[in-house]
Amino acid sequence: MNTYGTLFRITTFGESHGPSIGVVVDGCPAGLPVDEVFIQQELARRKPGQSKITTQRKEDDAFKILSGVFEGKTTGMPIALVIENQDQRSKDYSHVENVFRPSHADYTYEAKYGHRDHRGGGRSSARETAARVAAGAIAKLFLRSYGVTIQAFVSQVGDIKAAHYTTLDLSKTEDNIVRCPDATVADKMIELIDAVRLDRDTIGGLVTCVIKNTPVGLGEPVFDKLHAELGKAMLSINAVKGFEYGSGFEGITLRGSEHNDLFYTEEGQVRTKTNFSGGVQGGISNGEDIYFNVAFKPVATIMQDQETVDKDNNPAVVSGKGRHDPCVVPRAVPIVEAMAALVIADFVLRTRTSKL
Amino acid sequence: MNTYGTLFRITTFGESHGPSIGVVVDGCPAGLPVDEVFIQQELARRKPGQSKITTQRKEDDAFKILSGVFEGKTTGMPIALVIENQDQRSKDYSHVENVFRPSHADYTYEAKYGHRDHRGGGRSSARETAARVAAGAIAKLFLRSYGVTIQAFVSQVGDIKAAHYTTLDLSKTEDNIVRCPDATVADKMIELIDAVRLDRDTIGGLVTCVIKNTPVGLGEPVFDKLHAELGKAMLSINAVKGFEYGSGFEGITLRGSEHNDLFYTEEGQVRTKTNFSGGVQGGISNGEDIYFNVAFKPVATIMQDQETVDKDNNPAVVSGKGRHDPCVVPRAVPIVEAMAALVIADFVLRTRTSKL
Amino acid sequence: MNTYGTLFRITTFGESHGPSIGVVVDGCPAGLPVDEVFIQQELARRKPGQSKITTQRKEDDAFKILSGVFEGKTTGMPIALVIENQDQRSKDYSHVENVFRPSHADYTYEAKYGHRDHRGGGRSSARETAARVAAGAIAKLFLRSYGVTIQAFVSQVGDIKAAHYTTLDLSKTEDNIVRCPDATVADKMIELIDAVRLDRDTIGGLVTCVIKNTPVGLGEPVFDKLHAELGKAMLSINAVKGFEYGSGFEGITLRGSEHNDLFYTEEGQVRTKTNFSGGVQGGISNGEDIYFNVAFKPVATIMQDQETVDKDNNPAVVSGKGRHDPCVVPRAVPIVEAMAALVIADFVLRTRTSKL
Amino acid sequence: MNTYGTLFRITTFGESHGPSIGVVVDGCPAGLPVDEVFIQQELARRKPGQSKITTQRKEDDAFKILSGVFEGKTTGMPIALVIENQDQRSKDYSHVENVFRPSHADYTYEAKYGHRDHRGGGRSSARETAARVAAGAIAKLFLRSYGVTIQAFVSQVGDIKAAHYTTLDLSKTEDNIVRCPDATVADKMIELIDAVRLDRDTIGGLVTCVIKNTPVGLGEPVFDKLHAELGKAMLSINAVKGFEYGSGFEGITLRGSEHNDLFYTEEGQVRTKTNFSGGVQGGISNGEDIYFNVAFKPVATIMQDQETVDKDNNPAVVSGKGRHDPCVVPRAVPIVEAMAALVIADFVLRTRTSKL
Repeated sequence: MNTYGTLFRITTFGESHGPSIGVVVDGCPAGLPVDEVFIQQELARRKPGQSKITTQRKEDDAFKILSGVFEGKTTGMPIALVIENQDQRSKDYSHVENVFRPSHADYTYEAKYGHRDHRGGGRSSARETAARVAAGAIAKLFLRSYGVTIQAFVSQVGDIKAAHYTTLDLSKTEDNIVRCPDATVADKMIELIDAVRLDRDTIGGLVTCVIKNTPVGLGEPVFDKLHAELGKAMLSINAVKGFEYGSGFEGITLRGSEHNDLFYTEEGQVRTKTNFSGGVQGGISNGEDIYFNVAFKPVATIMQDQETVDKDNNPAVVSGKGRHDPCVVPRAVPIVEAMAALVIADFVLRTRTSKL
Repeated sequence: MNTYGTLFRITTFGESHGPSIGVVVDGCPAGLPVDEVFIQQELARRKPGQSKITTQRKEDDAFKILSGVFEGKTTGMPIALVIENQDQRSKDYSHVENVFRPSHADYTYEAKYGHRDHRGGGRSSARETAARVAAGAIAKLFLRSYGVTIQAFVSQVGDIKAAHYTTLDLSKTEDNIVRCPDATVADKMIELIDAVRLDRDTIGGLVTCVIKNTPVGLGEPVFDKLHAELGKAMLSINAVKGFEYGSGFEGITLRGSEHNDLFYTEEGQVRTKTNFSGGVQGGISNGEDIYFNVAFKPVATIMQDQETVDKDNNPAVVSGKGRHDPCVVPRAVPIVEAMAALVIADFVLRTRTSKL
Repeated sequence: MNTYGTLFRITTFGESHGPSIGVVVDGCPAGLPVDEVFIQQELARRKPGQSKITTQRKEDDAFKILSGVFEGKTTGMPIALVIENQDQRSKDYSHVENVFRPSHADYTYEAKYGHRDHRGGGRSSARETAARVAAGAIAKLFLRSYGVTIQAFVSQVGDIKAAHYTTLDLSKTEDNIVRCPDATVADKMIELIDAVRLDRDTIGGLVTCVIKNTPVGLGEPVFDKLHAELGKAMLSINAVKGFEYGSGFEGITLRGSEHNDLFYTEEGQVRTKTNFSGGVQGGISNGEDIYFNVAFKPVATIMQDQETVDKDNNPAVVSGKGRHDPCVVPRAVPIVEAMAALVIADFVLRTRTSKL
Repeated sequence: MNTYGTLFRITTFGESHGPSIGVVVDGCPAGLPVDEVFIQQELARRKPGQSKITTQRKEDDAFKILSGVFEGKTTGMPIALVIENQDQRSKDYSHVENVFRPSHADYTYEAKYGHRDHRGGGRSSARETAARVAAGAIAKLFLRSYGVTIQAFVSQVGDIKAAHYTTLDLSKTEDNIVRCPDATVADKMIELIDAVRLDRDTIGGLVTCVIKNTPVGLGEPVFDKLHAELGKAMLSINAVKGFEYGSGFEGITLRGSEHNDLFYTEEGQVRTKTNFSGGVQGGISNGEDIYFNVAFKPVATIMQDQETVDKDNNPAVVSGKGRHDPCVVPRAVPIVEAMAALVIADFVLRTRTSKL
């Protein structure tokens, strides 16, 4: 459904072309200073129209906090936050009211619910993720007091790949519009996206996320393992097709003698010499960097004619109209960070209960 | 924690070397005939000692149902099912009571809980998955009435890969001990595992799972998307490092015009010409095959000396003793199926509420 | 926390003197016509200033739906509904910023959260219940299709009691401002409330609720029994001190031979001759009327000086200012109905899963 | 369903005449010494056959811990605890296989689930509460470290009432078989129960529960108020018809000026002069005694002929056979305590998250 998290919990609402979208953040501890400028900055990283390689829909994504904050600090009460939709152009969607766009959610929503808001994908639109980013910003503010940092970046567009995160300066992620801190490939990524756009087509990509300074002990086995929750959170983002952490799919071909992370001690802290575990062992954080990859498919809306069917099962042809992203990953970076922040914040709270 | 599922819900318990492990299945609808022979067969597919390429621990995994079944049928009440541990050799673990085995959960459990059962990994042992397989067998029985079938198989060991599932006869999965229906590679996989075992080492692998005949409409966006729950369920299995569905990570390099699944109509049913979507669109099943891959790391226990530290932060050396799998994927096949069955059964129940 | 319900689920937010309050209704099945006039009518039954025996705060309680409704019908997506606060007079509360009002939540919120919105009780204000009434109105619309009716009324004010519900015409509840369908006592109740108000004091009361035409089978033992959920829902309403259903506390003095409800058959339907069970047996509805009583304490805010302490543990004196109800039950009637509707709607959905 | 609690969570299973009943306790913090003698003592207080005024069914209620405890202390893992059924006499129930016993759960279970274990009431039997008592004993052990004490007692049988708890020495509760610490009425209660039993009838009663030394701050408004959860927990116990806390139903007739609990300071601690609030204000504990009453109906099984219907809607006559309690409250005392302990333990854990 539309609620995520156990103790640090969000409920999102809103459709792409309704009056507004929003989120209720419940369970955020009281006493947290709420830096509204920071929340707005996070929303700006996700908002449409921010560069030539994103959709040109214009949304300020100005938000309003309706509850849960008093004199600049959280009260422990639910924080409701609303963002108005401003630049809907619903008539761009009148041609798909009765036609199912390929690889969109049109058909499955119609089949499941029987009645749906078709405009701009309605609830299935990635516009919903703005609410996640706002909530994630609050989670980030909470995690600041623990020293946790969460940094995502674009690590692949099409077949152009960035270097491994350990060789990059992640503070440079925002230095270019594709959000890739590897300067040697960022321009090529941008060129590729631009070329794809001119082809009236779209392309997939990869986002890598790195979480540093997590406390040891986050994760609740056997089902709510840290990486299992991260996986679910990432897979719940629009267009995501895969998740791997640590050695991930490459671990398949390794031997145990290569893959095991040997323990040693550094300044009284247990550490590992390598980190194929991705900072998670037995579903619980071990204090090393948590890192994972999130695969995004090419955006389904392309500016080309495609065969499909309509509600009455008749053949039809549909082509994208309106304003769309040729590649989703540059704007997905803050969304990945937001969901990661929500998962980590939830486990930080849950972990307070593991011992007497 | 140790409960999974919303309406079809399981709670597992038990440690590797305690008196028994078990599961409570809650929410299974009343009136379902419980085929105990089938449950035992499923457990036999997972049990240790079943072939030369698995651990030689001997467990019958005979189960006993304590509740919830009357005159051979479910009553809608919680079904408790217990499996005794028989072949514990706890003294095989006395050497690791105070030493953290590399890439195991020893250190993180110690740090999180402060007090743990170290014998055989305690709760973090894959022995817990027997309870999942038993519960999954009940879910499979429930899904039979819907015609849903769930078939997993080993699709890769080390760098030896099977062909794509659409070209294989999945009914042949149980024809060999590695559970790979691609006869052209199964023997090579077995040889590789055997070679690795003789090297006192371990190797990773991949399990592919295919779900056929699912009703259209399973999945509860925006957070409980069908593939997001499948991902969490798979990532909660021991040793799993990655999950992808449909086109997965390969989708990164594709263009939208290649990747989109065009709709057409067949016998009054909306179908797609290709299935890069993996049977899930917008987080909801569309009636096509659901298929996904689950990456397993090489088993952490190797029969070689490895450097590590002990509880007091002193350097130590540890080597595997006892009986262990050189490669986890042959026995992981029924576990993957079980978790998939539990996810699908839960959504089948949840979907009953989506319309008036 | 601030979410209630399993499948038909609400999340409320907002403080008494913040910009607005609201609710997100998640899980309401798609295809339900949303009668906004009806929702407004329900809110009008709860709103302040509706008669001389309620608080004189003026709130239109005009609501706005932000999501989840398209072309007048639900889409299965979360329904966000916001009500602006208009007539806050926060300065009426400046005298209690640092002083704990007796029998209010001031002290416990301060102790638990450390930082709170003191204005008008903040989140602990009964203003929050407007959001429940709006959500309950949607639940009532859903239950209409099942023929379920939910009718609450004031059955006692101070020591003035109405007759048993089975002897009353519940359609007359709205005929007087105290919402008591027993015309023989309604005027006396109004007089008592008015007299108490002139005494600058407050008085307690009782609300009885009757639910007719519920399907047989609602309730999920052993913990989520129908009456247990009703009890929790009622006890979660501000100022409630007790809940009883069927024979309730009077059942203590009865013998089994008097209290048992004998079964008989009427038009092919199993019925009971008496209804001490209150329509619930073993935690599951049996098709008879469900009825229960909800006890409300006297409102804590009185227009008299009372001894108390301040944040610094110094003695203080506090007196009510602003606009308050001398007796809460007339306005509590729609709140009780709303919570009952939410519980019943949730169980209607949950019950769809009990059989194959 | 069959799971209760958010962080300190239990799942019970088992039927009256199945092989065993049991419970899984999940979320109990690690490091807690498990006093098995104490658990057995608690079970002994609830077990049948303990005195002449209880059922003569003979059950030792010996329990076995299957998991979650290592070297005498909890590990943070799920604690499974099983109790064998020994003295089932299922043939005592063959006469009600197809007949619905009045005011039992036979009819509603049949209608809801379609297939049920009729023997001894199956899952709806109060035998299930043994599992709750065992789990509650673990919760009590956890609460010991906080100094919290939970004491219930029989405060009324039929119309014989004990004095108010504040005038009684609750350590005397176990001094008599009816568990009433008021020596002036305990014998009368026993006589009444015995007389009722000789009449082949049953009688209702009241249990009062007092919780002392709770930390300030327990409870999670607006829905999970402390008293609301206590109410649900109590109402989930078999035969309970009502719940009230603090002033309860008597608060209806009081005025605010009488009912408000004035604050003062004692040794630096905020206290209230009276305690009509029952230790809970705004849904959160304030440090005063928490006290509440739980009303139990007369046991439905009476040794008299009663009219009813059978599965085929034919008229029938049924009379109690087997061994039953003439009054449930003496054995209900430890059950009420157990559920209270589980609620308080859960909130103790939840409260760890309310502030930064």
